[in-house]
Amino acid sequence: MFKAKKFVYSKRFEGLPKLTDFELVEEELPELQDGEILTEALYLSVDPHMRTYMARFPLGVTMLGDQVARVLESKNPAFPKDSIICGTLGWRTHSVFNPRDITDWLPPYIVPSLGDLPLSLAVGQLGMPGNTAYFGFIDICQPKKGEIVVVSGAAGAVGSLVGQIAKILECKVIGIAGSADKCEWLTKEIGFDHAINYKTESIADELKKFAPDGADCYFDNVGGETSSIVLRHVRLFGRVSVCGSVSSYNLPMDEWPKVPTYQHILITSQISMQGFLFTRFLPKWFEGIAQMKLWMEQGKLKYRQTITEGFENMPQALIDMLEGKNTGKAVVKNC
Amino acid sequence: MFKAKKFVYSKRFEGLPKLTDFELVEEELPELQDGEILTEALYLSVDPHMRTYMARFPLGVTMLGDQVARVLESKNPAFPKDSIICGTLGWRTHSVFNPRDITDWLPPYIVPSLGDLPLSLAVGQLGMPGNTAYFGFIDICQPKKGEIVVVSGAAGAVGSLVGQIAKILECKVIGIAGSADKCEWLTKEIGFDHAINYKTESIADELKKFAPDGADCYFDNVGGETSSIVLRHVRLFGRVSVCGSVSSYNLPMDEWPKVPTYQHILITSQISMQGFLFTRFLPKWFEGIAQMKLWMEQGKLKYRQTITEGFENMPQALIDMLEGKNTGKAVVKNC
Repeated sequence: MFKAKKFVYSKRFEGLPKLTDFELVEEELPELQDGEILTEALYLSVDPHMRTYMARFPLGVTMLGDQVARVLESKNPAFPKDSIICGTLGWRTHSVFNPRDITDWLPPYIVPSLGDLPLSLAVGQLGMPGNTAYFGFIDICQPKKGEIVVVSGAAGAVGSLVGQIAKILECKVIGIAGSADKCEWLTKEIGFDHAINYKTESIADELKKFAPDGADCYFDNVGGETSSIVLRHVRLFGRVSVCGSVSSYNLPMDEWPKVPTYQHILITSQISMQGFLFTRFLPKWFEGIAQMKLWMEQGKLKYRQTITEGFENMPQALIDMLEGKNTGKAVVKNC
Repeated sequence: MFKAKKFVYSKRFEGLPKLTDFELVEEELPELQDGEILTEALYLSVDPHMRTYMARFPLGVTMLGDQVARVLESKNPAFPKDSIICGTLGWRTHSVFNPRDITDWLPPYIVPSLGDLPLSLAVGQLGMPGNTAYFGFIDICQPKKGEIVVVSGAAGAVGSLVGQIAKILECKVIGIAGSADKCEWLTKEIGFDHAINYKTESIADELKKFAPDGADCYFDNVGGETSSIVLRHVRLFGRVSVCGSVSSYNLPMDEWPKVPTYQHILITSQISMQGFLFTRFLPKWFEGIAQMKLWMEQGKLKYRQTITEGFENMPQALIDMLEGKNTGKAVVKNC
């Protein structure tokens, strides 16, 4: 018998999650049946979507989440012992399951070789957030060389990749972030052309300065007031990829920030605005990872992770990330 | 010398336009130069966009608008005497101009034969509003047989066509309109499956009843609260064509209706929302008119016009239309 730890969703989130909303429990894992594997979490992901996604589940379920894990025992030839896998196994240190039975969110897959790059990237820049950035930007914004791209939540896991991908595609990139440190990282270290600190600067004034004729693409991680301002600075036939809505994730629907109705601006500038989830990109998952990995190896794509040590600290890591304390991808190291 | 009457934009619109915002003036038209034609307005269009579009122009200009006109004299072989043309000639009874010089909005063209159909349709169902409905729905919503289509402003010139086109394409159609008469017209006369009177019924409740699994397409003429409700009832991979924003046309930007930020819903249901102006469809203008005309001749497409007699009544006709007093296309008959 194998003892595992897991976090249970024990109290409904209200506003920002609290440590008391989670319960750490131990459970005995069953013996492996045919087709099943036993895995041990190496790195676990904390992501903005967790805040909203859990609202769909009853209390008492294991917290949802992706992890990079090692296969400790296997009765499934497709997932042999010692292989490294990635998938939505939840907030647990060890798991026993048949990979075929996990069809929701991110079905388990063997992580392609990452060479010298850290394994934690498999839940980050070379995993779900990476492909969210890669396909969510390229497929939906359809950026062209020389165009102007605005990214909100620019210092986050996805935003920081989108800006760098835009630079690789020879666009001009303006990032919006929430601290001077983050803005400095964007412009000094990962090549954004400009960064706007929305807490101390006027987004409208800065966009007038950096993009006087408007932006061609907007990669939206936040919604709310910030996006309303950016939308007024998107030009004719602009494309908006709607990836996140941090401004409303922590709030019940009737408290979402209110903004002037968008239609007028969408019509005048003939803007197309598209929301997406990464699941639509699963059929070409490894294509995205391969390209991003190549860019990293070529030094074109930099990454930063905020790694919290210890499985027990997962709730705090999620809370910190939702408060914007991370730069780059937030990950928890189990062992 | 030929005397023409025209309406000048003499006072900035505030809220709903007032009769005193327009000035009726007479002007002597010049002799024809080479390439020019003299036209007489037959039918003039009043359209929702006039309310906002004029804000871009200085006071003193002739009111912008499309008309169907007869060529009375011609020094341009491409537009011979007695031909019937359509184009943005403004609110004037007679005009002298070189068609080549009118490049904004709707450049003048000779109206294709409408057979037994009334000429007024050339500024309506077989003109700009017609193609707005035809391409704005088909190109942007990409409707498929069996899908559910919601149309707001459903009894208006464009909305009433969109619903009928959707029926021809074998979709299920739900219209939203502002009176019992309009709703009855939609369902009893032009084939909508359901109509919701937003002034007396709950849009959310009715959508739950008529589209329990959500709508596939939403053709948005209004924005504001109505559209916020409809968006929550659009299902996975839904397409929203943003054609109009009647809820904000009469208001300055800082008074546009405030709605909960859309991003959350756009992401969850992976909705694509696209604003457009008819000008993008000019390259295939006559294709749209030909198809709509064919459908009319086959009895598949019905139309209704609200025709106001007398050029002098143009301001009132515009005001009435903005107040939703028309059913189908609002047109003014000059002679």
